[in-house]
Parts: sequence; C-alpha cells; structure tokens
Amino acid sequence: MTKRHVAVILSGCGVFDGAEIHESVLSLLALEHQGATYQCFAPDIPQHHVINHLSGDEMDESRSVLVESARIARGNIKALSDFDANDFDALMLPGGFGAAKNLSSLAFDGPNCTVNTDVKNAVNAMLEASKPIGALCITPAVIAKILEGRSAKLTIGSDPATIGAIEAMGGDHKETTHAEVVIDEKLKLVTSPCYMLDASISQIAEGAENTVSAMLGLI
Amino acid sequence: MTKRHVAVILSGCGVFDGAEIHESVLSLLALEHQGATYQCFAPDIPQHHVINHLSGDEMDESRSVLVESARIARGNIKALSDFDANDFDALMLPGGFGAAKNLSSLAFDGPNCTVNTDVKNAVNAMLEASKPIGALCITPAVIAKILEGRSAKLTIGSDPATIGAIEAMGGDHKETTHAEVVIDEKLKLVTSPCYMLDASISQIAEGAENTVSAMLGLI
Repeated sequence: MTKRHVAVILSGCGVFDGAEIHESVLSLLALEHQGATYQCFAPDIPQHHVINHLSGDEMDESRSVLVESARIARGNIKALSDFDANDFDALMLPGGFGAAKNLSSLAFDGPNCTVNTDVKNAVNAMLEASKPIGALCITPAVIAKILEGRSAKLTIGSDPATIGAIEAMGGDHKETTHAEVVIDEKLKLVTSPCYMLDASISQIAEGAENTVSAMLGLI
Repeated sequence: MTKRHVAVILSGCGVFDGAEIHESVLSLLALEHQGATYQCFAPDIPQHHVINHLSGDEMDESRSVLVESARIARGNIKALSDFDANDFDALMLPGGFGAAKNLSSLAFDGPNCTVNTDVKNAVNAMLEASKPIGALCITPAVIAKILEGRSAKLTIGSDPATIGAIEAMGGDHKETTHAEVVIDEKLKLVTSPCYMLDASISQIAEGAENTVSAMLGLI
C-alpha cells in the first residue's frame, strides 16, 4: 500500500497567537506513527497580533503566519494558496488561538466570523472530494463556520461559550472529554478537544493519535 | 513514590535560532509518559539573531530567548537565573541551534566558545549534587565545554566537525545512530543525537524516550 499523504494546516507558532505547538508536533508524530507522510501549509498572511507568551501582553510587532509556522515545520512548509486536494488523502488542523485569530475571526466575531479564503478553499476541496478532515481543539469551530447549515457533528470538548457559537452556526456539538473523538461519517470529519480542555501533554498525544487513526480509517 | 521533577532548559523557539521544537515537545512528552513532572526554564537574554525559518535568511528583528521559549512552554516557564538544583531530580536540555547561538557561542567559536553563566551554573549545580543530566542533539557539545578536561563520555551522532570540537574540548565522543543513547555513569550524563542526524519525527520521539528513561534510571 502506498503511504497516505496528509496536509497539515498551521496558523503560526504559539498557543496564544498561532498554532498550538504541542498539538501541531504531536499531530505530525501521530501521522508518522500511523504510516502517513505529511506536508505542512499555512496562509501567507500577517498574524492578527503577536502575544508575549510569558506575560500574556500584546507586543508591538508584526509577524507572518507562514514564516512563524515554518518554525514548527523546520522550514518544510508551503503557502496554503498552493494547496491542491488532488495531492492529499486527508487534511489535518491542529488548534491554538491562531485558528481563531489568523485562520478566521472567530475569537473576535464568534458565530459571525469570517474564514480565511485559502482555508475555506482547502476544506471545501477536501469535502468535495470526500476526503477526511481531522480537526483538534478550537479548529472544529472554524470548520463549523465553513459548513454552516450542514449540521456537522463535531466536538470542541465542553466549553459552553464555544459550544454556543458552534450551535449558532448550525453545528451539531457533542460533548467529549480527554482524547475522545467525534466522527461525522457523512462529512468524513473527525474532531477531538485537546487543549480546549485543561489537558496534559500526554492527553494531547492520545487525542492526536485517536484523531489520526479515525481520520485515516475514513479514507 | 513521589514523582520525579525535572528541569528543562530551552533556548528559544525554532531549530535555526532557538530550541528545536520537536525535540523540546517530545522531551516534555517523554517525561510525562515516564511519570515525571517538569518545569521549563530559559535564560532571560536576547537571541543571538532571528532567522526566517521559511527562507533561512536573518531577519532585522530582536527577540528574547525567555519570551520565545515561553511559546513551547505555553507560558509556564521561569528565568534560568531562578533555577535551584535542590528543587529537581534531573535536568534535561533539548537541542536546536539556540544551544549553539544563545546558550553558548559554539556555532561561532567552536571549542573556544563561552557558555551562558546561568546554563553553566545550572549544569554545575546538578553535577555537584550528583543528579543526572539528559542532553539531546547539539547540547552535549555545550556540556562538553562546561566539563572541559573531565573526559565526559557523550554523543552528538556522527557529524565530524562537531565531534572534532568536542574532542578539542576534551570530551570522549562515541558515535551513535538514531535513538541510541550514550551514558556516562560517573558524571550521570545521558546523550542522544536526535536531529544532529537526518532524522524523522518518530526517531526524535524514540531518542527522547530513551534519554529520559536512562536519565531517570540514574536518579
């Protein structure tokens, strides 16, 4: 069997203004553990802002989502505008506030958010091709916006405000705890809460492994 | 048995100018997998420089080693000047060029390098207390400098230039391949090559697990 090839969309580098680093690294590890290869992507746009991860304060700087995401990918990353669904068997989105600040405006606009066009195109192309998507942490809420009105069954864990936003966007939220996955068989969507819960790093590893396993099983 | 508590020294956030992200995350995961708790530290100093990880070019920016390391630690990090060896059972150093550019001047001065005072103090305090140290990738070369003249048995894999530098500093280098560890029983030093070899992410996970296992076994 040829190896499954999976695209991974990053949103920067750091939980408070970009991709959550543990979720990102442990997604890549889970993919390789389960026999898949991967290619990282990120939109070539400025970050919404830069957060000092020690103090929590906003910094007077600007950084690029693609350039910072390249840190997690060790330089091996492409602009998301170059993504072609024909090249991949599945698509995976680790979490972090970057998904709600850079990939979409969810953190600011809730259910009325907009989603970055490259992200929307990538997700829609995979749906169109009936190829599975795995989404961790807050990213299922971004998927819920793209799938507005299609009753996507998904989870972000148990946070009432985010569940409210997902339901306002017509998503069918299922409450979950650590490392559990929710599978929407029809849409081939696999989701898991990861750091949307107060989790430890090994719970994140388990959530990523379970998500990848279910996602690859839907190919 | 009370949980082993391990200090982890980071050197920024990104392989080319800071701590290697995969090695750092997979060290934290290995520690938790093997029943230990951890506390991240980094020196509160400016990075030597900032590298665009997409292009490889130097950027006209300055960043703090401690503030950028906080991205990997999700904000839970302390200045290395606050490190007290009495609080910890072991010390771990993931790799990345940050070790050779921020924790020391190894990348520029080779065997004539200097080592950051906080790093030197932390390593020497653990040696003095006969508590184990685990070092991945390039960091064994930094340890070799601190231990100059003490014939520390260690590995960075098989890179001839770095082996030459280690031997010039009086280190006793042992060649290794993926995920192998070298143990200096007398100094309680455990080392593994990780990304000093052309490795995949699951080989890094295995190297980190093996290093943590040997390190905890020396307590």
